[in-house]
Amino acid sequence: MKHQRIVLASRPQAEAGTEHFRLETVETPAVPEGHVRVQVHYLSLDPYMRMRMNDAKNYAAPVAVGEVMVGGTVGVVAESKHEGFVVGDSVVCMGGWQEQAVLDARQPGMVRKVDASRVPLPAFLGAVGMPGVTAWVGLNHIIEPKAGETIVVDAASGAVGSMVGQLAKAKGCRAIGIAGGADKCAYVREELGFDACIDYKQHRDFASLAAALDAVAPRGVDGLFENVGGVIMDVVLSRMNAFGRVALCGLISGYEGEPLVIHNARLLLTQRLKLQGFIVSEHMQLWPAALKELGMGVATGQLKYRETVAQGLAAAPEAFLGLLKGRNFGKQLVKLV
Amino acid sequence: MKHQRIVLASRPQAEAGTEHFRLETVETPAVPEGHVRVQVHYLSLDPYMRMRMNDAKNYAAPVAVGEVMVGGTVGVVAESKHEGFVVGDSVVCMGGWQEQAVLDARQPGMVRKVDASRVPLPAFLGAVGMPGVTAWVGLNHIIEPKAGETIVVDAASGAVGSMVGQLAKAKGCRAIGIAGGADKCAYVREELGFDACIDYKQHRDFASLAAALDAVAPRGVDGLFENVGGVIMDVVLSRMNAFGRVALCGLISGYEGEPLVIHNARLLLTQRLKLQGFIVSEHMQLWPAALKELGMGVATGQLKYRETVAQGLAAAPEAFLGLLKGRNFGKQLVKLV
Repeated sequence: MKHQRIVLASRPQAEAGTEHFRLETVETPAVPEGHVRVQVHYLSLDPYMRMRMNDAKNYAAPVAVGEVMVGGTVGVVAESKHEGFVVGDSVVCMGGWQEQAVLDARQPGMVRKVDASRVPLPAFLGAVGMPGVTAWVGLNHIIEPKAGETIVVDAASGAVGSMVGQLAKAKGCRAIGIAGGADKCAYVREELGFDACIDYKQHRDFASLAAALDAVAPRGVDGLFENVGGVIMDVVLSRMNAFGRVALCGLISGYEGEPLVIHNARLLLTQRLKLQGFIVSEHMQLWPAALKELGMGVATGQLKYRETVAQGLAAAPEAFLGLLKGRNFGKQLVKLV
Repeated sequence: MKHQRIVLASRPQAEAGTEHFRLETVETPAVPEGHVRVQVHYLSLDPYMRMRMNDAKNYAAPVAVGEVMVGGTVGVVAESKHEGFVVGDSVVCMGGWQEQAVLDARQPGMVRKVDASRVPLPAFLGAVGMPGVTAWVGLNHIIEPKAGETIVVDAASGAVGSMVGQLAKAKGCRAIGIAGGADKCAYVREELGFDACIDYKQHRDFASLAAALDAVAPRGVDGLFENVGGVIMDVVLSRMNAFGRVALCGLISGYEGEPLVIHNARLLLTQRLKLQGFIVSEHMQLWPAALKELGMGVATGQLKYRETVAQGLAAAPEAFLGLLKGRNFGKQLVKLV
């Protein structure tokens, strides 16, 4: 039996391109004792993958050149040599960019069974998966919002940002999104229910974006959930109220190697801000509570989300590069089956 | 009765100079009910005063032009219309840059009696005062060091920095100072007992300072107590270990209005750092415990400190400007009596 996979062909020196990926057909390995083989239905594409392509000091080891690109997946168990799994089980796993994944099911958290009866399978890669939990952890454990506070999130129509704003609204906060383009902003306001959403493409410089933020956040900003960095971060920091909290989740504007600068760091002191970087996989003890709340929200329709689905493994590199440019709308997935 | 005082003559547009201060002789006001008059013995000079000279959004109101410069003082009660104080009491108060201060003793914390029998009076402006408590709060409540960790503090020979390192050593940490000049570094190492001290004047650029830090902190940095900002902060941030903590206490390199930039903010995410700005006066609930420990340390000689004392109120502006340039050695005081 053979399957297709995508490996890291070479490391980008600056901007990533399709030439850094290679589609291969390989022999599917046999399934050792304690392992399962998962037929991957959906692959999740996420900004963190860009950092794993670099050979840089980071929170996770880089993907080796020639190795399968890392990635979260959902699928169905096709072969099992582990007593906890039977053929047909729906699972979430770090299967990578490939059609078949043979995984050691004895390792805690490596393969996790999910109930796809109330929540659609791909949602376990978004709203009820890593991005949703990321939103939940950053909001509840770093920003710790109080009712009435103003919370800003950028990449607001994305898999993480869309959850941040909806969870903040549920806590009685004023939720302000920042997103790219009129369509995304309309979706954030009208479908997700944010109080406001600023189109950063209409406000490219500091002064213009700051004026737009002032118009919708006249009492300043208490919490920032930061996915982007750059001028957006500089502007929101400049509008933070005393004792504001910044959950630093991603810096997508700097993933291609550009310097990522905070231009007015004095504000961190004068406003007594707390800024904390975090990685959701290092807060595993919080996942069960987060997944329970997110699953309930999605099952009842209270938490809304949107997906962009590329068709077939070969489409993954283009879809991933588009994600880095903000061309996706909501959670970016690749459908393999 | 008349006394001398120094008022803010005008606001600096960039670097502060003696022209921004004015020495005046004024009629000493009568003492209203509930107030005391304090004869000021020592005035404390501190970097935060520079920020109060600007008319900028900040954590404390700016000093108005024509008003007495703000400042912590120690002195002796010379006249009392408050039942809690008698003439001759040693007190700490925010008396400002003046020889006589009439203060409302009914306001909590405005005038605080101290026991000057075991700790010299001026120490209540330094090691057993606001600077000492600043070190204690930032170290214990933001950095929260564990034994064996490496803690870096800049302005290490100063009133705050000297305490940070000594307190960190007492907790079993490796304490590394950064200071300006061979004399200060020798003092930090030999008298204060830090494990190492780097002379930043010998390492003006990023690469040189980073190499010097690597030599004394081969296992990286777990906690940074930041008083300076600029290239020093950039270098230490670049050497932070995962889950490092940064207590942002002061940014003296930016007090004259220069931009204060964090050049590699991506590190905050990739190393999952926590960075928190704080102002010691907003943590009043911690002062009693801090003052008790600091007072004990000074009384027993375990905590060491050094003072630079300018003579007479008229010397205050020059001494203050020197402080901003790092020309003082240890706690900068002005002796008025």
